[in-house]
Amino acid sequence: MSELRKDFVIDRWVIIAAERSDRPHDIAPATQPDPTEPCPFCAGHEAMTPPEVFAYRDRSTAPNMPGWRIRVVPNKYPALASAAGFSHRADSMYEFMDGVGVHEVIIETPRHCPNMAELSDRQFEDVLRAYRQRMVDVQKDPRWQSILIYKNQGSAAGATLEHVHSQLLAMPMVPREVAEELRAAKAHYTAKRKCLYCGIIESERADRRRIVAEDDAFIVFCPFAPRFPFETWLLPKRHSPFFHTVTEDELRQFAGLLRQSLRRLDSAAAAPFNYVIHSGPLKESDHEHFHWRLEILPRISKIAGFELSSGYYINTVAPEAAARNLRDALP
Amino acid sequence: MSELRKDFVIDRWVIIAAERSDRPHDIAPATQPDPTEPCPFCAGHEAMTPPEVFAYRDRSTAPNMPGWRIRVVPNKYPALASAAGFSHRADSMYEFMDGVGVHEVIIETPRHCPNMAELSDRQFEDVLRAYRQRMVDVQKDPRWQSILIYKNQGSAAGATLEHVHSQLLAMPMVPREVAEELRAAKAHYTAKRKCLYCGIIESERADRRRIVAEDDAFIVFCPFAPRFPFETWLLPKRHSPFFHTVTEDELRQFAGLLRQSLRRLDSAAAAPFNYVIHSGPLKESDHEHFHWRLEILPRISKIAGFELSSGYYINTVAPEAAARNLRDALP
Repeated sequence: MSELRKDFVIDRWVIIAAERSDRPHDIAPATQPDPTEPCPFCAGHEAMTPPEVFAYRDRSTAPNMPGWRIRVVPNKYPALASAAGFSHRADSMYEFMDGVGVHEVIIETPRHCPNMAELSDRQFEDVLRAYRQRMVDVQKDPRWQSILIYKNQGSAAGATLEHVHSQLLAMPMVPREVAEELRAAKAHYTAKRKCLYCGIIESERADRRRIVAEDDAFIVFCPFAPRFPFETWLLPKRHSPFFHTVTEDELRQFAGLLRQSLRRLDSAAAAPFNYVIHSGPLKESDHEHFHWRLEILPRISKIAGFELSSGYYINTVAPEAAARNLRDALP
Repeated sequence: MSELRKDFVIDRWVIIAAERSDRPHDIAPATQPDPTEPCPFCAGHEAMTPPEVFAYRDRSTAPNMPGWRIRVVPNKYPALASAAGFSHRADSMYEFMDGVGVHEVIIETPRHCPNMAELSDRQFEDVLRAYRQRMVDVQKDPRWQSILIYKNQGSAAGATLEHVHSQLLAMPMVPREVAEELRAAKAHYTAKRKCLYCGIIESERADRRRIVAEDDAFIVFCPFAPRFPFETWLLPKRHSPFFHTVTEDELRQFAGLLRQSLRRLDSAAAAPFNYVIHSGPLKESDHEHFHWRLEILPRISKIAGFELSSGYYINTVAPEAAARNLRDALP
């Protein structure tokens, strides 16, 4: 079982995947597959993963058999496990708890494909529907304060299997990045009586230089201070703290814009990337100030000593130029 | 000239290296050298870098000619520049300023060498003396609030030239990671009337499981919640907020332990790595709570979607096992 440990001073928890820690000479991450094995995410290899917890599949087919379009399975090497206890121990310097949580993998297509941009609109819709459904189900467990959904595509972005997939991770705390954002968004709301992100949408629409695309429900733009070249954010125009409350109409529009955004990136700067959904903390009673979004984070530049010691970033492509290129990338 | 831009909500500044932003299809970082060119850091190629600002060299030799052991030059592609203005503009959502600061490169040997662990004790001492000297000089400019010193070794750690070198970056603000640490350390000091890091040293020495090495002036250990496999911290036993106040005796001991630590890492898990010196903010009036240190951050695992969206880390090697391996790595 893994263990959650908190840094001595800052609000930074580390998940120590303990099962490998007695074999420390084996420095490969626990999730590294044997490259000579067949792909565990391809149709026909269902037995290579833990049993599915959810799938979109043909009516006549049985679970854990071919016939699926999307398949959700527990992570075979979970960073956090639901069955773990919930003991929390702390003194003035050392704080830790059992690695309790949920860690699932969303397999996005039954056919081997390393590039999500090649999936169809229909497949994008299915992926987003699966996210929504799993978030709705997982958030029923009152132990979780936060659900992260993220994708690693390409080895430099941390993917260990190339078959397109994403991950869901539910945690018993609000992670540092979300907590800080929440704090700042609350302060803004208290001062202005208005959601910060609704204000950003207004002001980016007035400026236009950083906008990549938009429709009546969503805006796609390069943020003012992007960490990475071609970093792109997708925000809903309707104020809503939670991704999992998107309507069916919104979901279809969002699927179209997400697919288009990944195809733009693929054409402008084919690169490994992460995307992450920032959705509101589940236990917050007040939801006026948090506004969900999806961030696409291309991994063209490296995270180096400067970034690790400062928490700041160096980016060689201004967002105004990145947006211009992404706009031009698809006619 | 580059530009500093602040994120909409959190205290995260991004340096936009603007000179490349009009060529956004050229996605290579601005620091990427042409691989067909000779190494600009080797003796004999002094003209390939900007003129040196400091060097340890034979008495009979002229600046910017061979005969040096350590050479410090301005970064040819500076993220921040000292000549920039100091205008700071902000409204409720967009905050930015000119990219003002200092960005230097410390070239650690005249002979081409890609692995710092292969340098001699004497060379390590010279490198650390050069850090100290440049910090003493650079901090005289009252514009800088913080000086970072860091090393990127290996492409996965962000190095663009393999010849061993490190970087100094002075900034007009206290970076996020340092500010948060300072806040927490202050709170601890106020509650306990004792430096947090002095307490960590005591408690790690009592526990012993995470200690790699120590002498009378320094302790080397794997921290309780390490972000990376084999992450190692070097802390001075004497309470001191600033690296640049080390004495000559301490510097020699520190050089020996740093060299030994990198050789241990090289032997246990040869890997790209960063090291970073956390030294106190220059403008703090109260120095009871900050305690300088050097962190070695091996880049065995990737920073992926989980880390970028949460600010947390997954580490597959427990620090107790890492310390055991590092201890055993050098007899």
